[in-house]
Amino acid sequence: MIATGTRMASPPQPIIVVAVDSFKGSLSAADACAAIVVGIRRALPAADVRARPMADGGEGTLDAVLAASAGATRRRMPACSAAGDEIEADVGILADGAAIVEIAQVVGITDAAAMTTPVAARDTRGVGVLLRRLLDAGCRDFSLALGGSSTNDGGAGMLAALGVRLLDVAGAEVAPSPDGLARLARVDATGLDPRIRQARLTIMSDVDNPLTGERGATAVFGPQKGVAAGAVGAIDATLARYAAQVESALGKSASQLRGAGAAGGLGFALQLLGAQFNSGADVVADIIGLDAALAGAAWAITGEGRSDAQTLMRKAPYVVAERARAQHVPVSLLSGAVDPATLAMLESRFDGCFALPPGPQTLAASVAHAAEWLADRASAMTRLRFSELRPSR
Amino acid sequence: MIATGTRMASPPQPIIVVAVDSFKGSLSAADACAAIVVGIRRALPAADVRARPMADGGEGTLDAVLAASAGATRRRMPACSAAGDEIEADVGILADGAAIVEIAQVVGITDAAAMTTPVAARDTRGVGVLLRRLLDAGCRDFSLALGGSSTNDGGAGMLAALGVRLLDVAGAEVAPSPDGLARLARVDATGLDPRIRQARLTIMSDVDNPLTGERGATAVFGPQKGVAAGAVGAIDATLARYAAQVESALGKSASQLRGAGAAGGLGFALQLLGAQFNSGADVVADIIGLDAALAGAAWAITGEGRSDAQTLMRKAPYVVAERARAQHVPVSLLSGAVDPATLAMLESRFDGCFALPPGPQTLAASVAHAAEWLADRASAMTRLRFSELRPSR
Repeated sequence: MIATGTRMASPPQPIIVVAVDSFKGSLSAADACAAIVVGIRRALPAADVRARPMADGGEGTLDAVLAASAGATRRRMPACSAAGDEIEADVGILADGAAIVEIAQVVGITDAAAMTTPVAARDTRGVGVLLRRLLDAGCRDFSLALGGSSTNDGGAGMLAALGVRLLDVAGAEVAPSPDGLARLARVDATGLDPRIRQARLTIMSDVDNPLTGERGATAVFGPQKGVAAGAVGAIDATLARYAAQVESALGKSASQLRGAGAAGGLGFALQLLGAQFNSGADVVADIIGLDAALAGAAWAITGEGRSDAQTLMRKAPYVVAERARAQHVPVSLLSGAVDPATLAMLESRFDGCFALPPGPQTLAASVAHAAEWLADRASAMTRLRFSELRPSR
Repeated sequence: MIATGTRMASPPQPIIVVAVDSFKGSLSAADACAAIVVGIRRALPAADVRARPMADGGEGTLDAVLAASAGATRRRMPACSAAGDEIEADVGILADGAAIVEIAQVVGITDAAAMTTPVAARDTRGVGVLLRRLLDAGCRDFSLALGGSSTNDGGAGMLAALGVRLLDVAGAEVAPSPDGLARLARVDATGLDPRIRQARLTIMSDVDNPLTGERGATAVFGPQKGVAAGAVGAIDATLARYAAQVESALGKSASQLRGAGAAGGLGFALQLLGAQFNSGADVVADIIGLDAALAGAAWAITGEGRSDAQTLMRKAPYVVAERARAQHVPVSLLSGAVDPATLAMLESRFDGCFALPPGPQTLAASVAHAAEWLADRASAMTRLRFSELRPSR
């Protein structure tokens, strides 16, 4: 017989949830989580660590969802870029058949080739092409991550690819770009693919702006996509006229809805088709099972490349903190940088806000050493939090 | 009657000890501790915080000792600088009459005026002048903080001021500087003030180098004081000859003792006079009552401007960690910068090593914002460690 009673009992090991967003320009969310796990294990080798890479509807959302969803698959499908070039885009298919479409994979602002075409000539046809292919494949449930687009077409490209005809005074089709829409005279929605109106559409976004006006897509996000300051007014007016005509043709209003201004107005067109607007980070949290991971956890770490006032707009760390607090799990922030001007507001949300650099350092050094320093900081935080449990005392 | 039983019981508030060294170039130890206390109280308003500014025998030692010693007084006394100019130096007199002399106050490397005189012409006479005045005042117990000197005279200046005659071949007195000692032919110690040999002398230093040779004062610390690379050999040889002659005159050896190379060889001359060599940080910890402050504490924070391999040489944070560990008090490091190359070794000593910047930042910004960022980091660390006790959960 084995005298189990004589063996030393191991102290209970805490469950630690690691749910950080990507560190843009240096690490994907999965790599950032992995680096933090390395640091935690250095301090507390037997900790029960649950890595749940997060995203908020921008670039990296598809990766985060696929990494955490059992039975999910990645499919590469033909589409076209914001400039009309043939490209391939990755799409995620969850175990229940729902599709995850990351807009940044199709009309992404990181597509250097498409960015050589002026923003007034870029459009979202590729998104509609992709949706149509997915409809052909039998898919009727779509979650669309709207962050990181290069387009400002009010979603006209997507609607055109789904069968909505955008016509000039002579009855000829116009390009579904700001340039083309400037000549829009009439909208014929009779050819709209009926399957898309039967589908379940879910928007994942952290942008709650309306389509037009001072807080609209063009005024707020146009400049970073290449809209010249002098062109904002004209493009905004074009989108307003387009919106009125397409709303009339579809018998529905959407331009003032929350998030209509997301992805250059793609949020408008999708809501016109019946899409439900949701916080991107909340949808991701639900898909990846964050609440279940937090159950019984002793601590959670979240973070992102830079935490500032934007973080409070339901970015990934904000949502992780909210979910953790709901289960009374302490949650700390570990970001590449934490804006001192926003710290007072961030502090109330987190059990400690920590930054990456081990001293005065350049941004380039922080990017180059991100994985190493994340591990170092996570180790320090774990040592501070669980000093009682460490064997080396 | 007051129904005290109906009042809510406050949760027990942890005792937190803050014992950091100065952040050179930005904050004194007292100011650094005060900034950290601000941060702790922001996170945990009712915490029982005990601030014990630390030092390790360098600049700031006198301030740290005076701040923590009940009944201690600061006295300003006339002396002379390393260049021979009349100056005034602060000296501490403890309640029991013991004197604290900070060498950096007399022959400090931060004395810009004295630094215009070449190192070969600088000497430590001012230290001997000060000791003599303290002897006249009845003092017989001296603790000398040896860090931060600009001199490399083997302590010859101090010995000369105390009555030791340093003579050339013609019997004329030479200057007690490297230049003068090069012509030293004979040492006459008969005039040495007898009171200094009856006194209790304690060295506070973190330098354990011998007087001469490869690890000697001139080779290791000479260059940062202005000794040209080509002059190291000659000055080292001069100090070796001087040491042999003064050892012979006093009938005692000291040049190979631990710390003989401290303060350009002042450590040698003091040990020749019977001084006890001690780690500066340990002496300071004893004087300021660090062990008593740590009794019953839940956590300690220590730190310094920059933590690296030098920290492991019994610098202030190292000694604070040792004292805390001896009482099973978790202890964390919060420094302006933490050298990543030394982190593995530092990690084993601390319950988390943290740095000051809130993101990629310049050294100048870290210096300018040191107090604010220390408070921010301390707040974050306190929130992480004591999340259960915070009222806002």
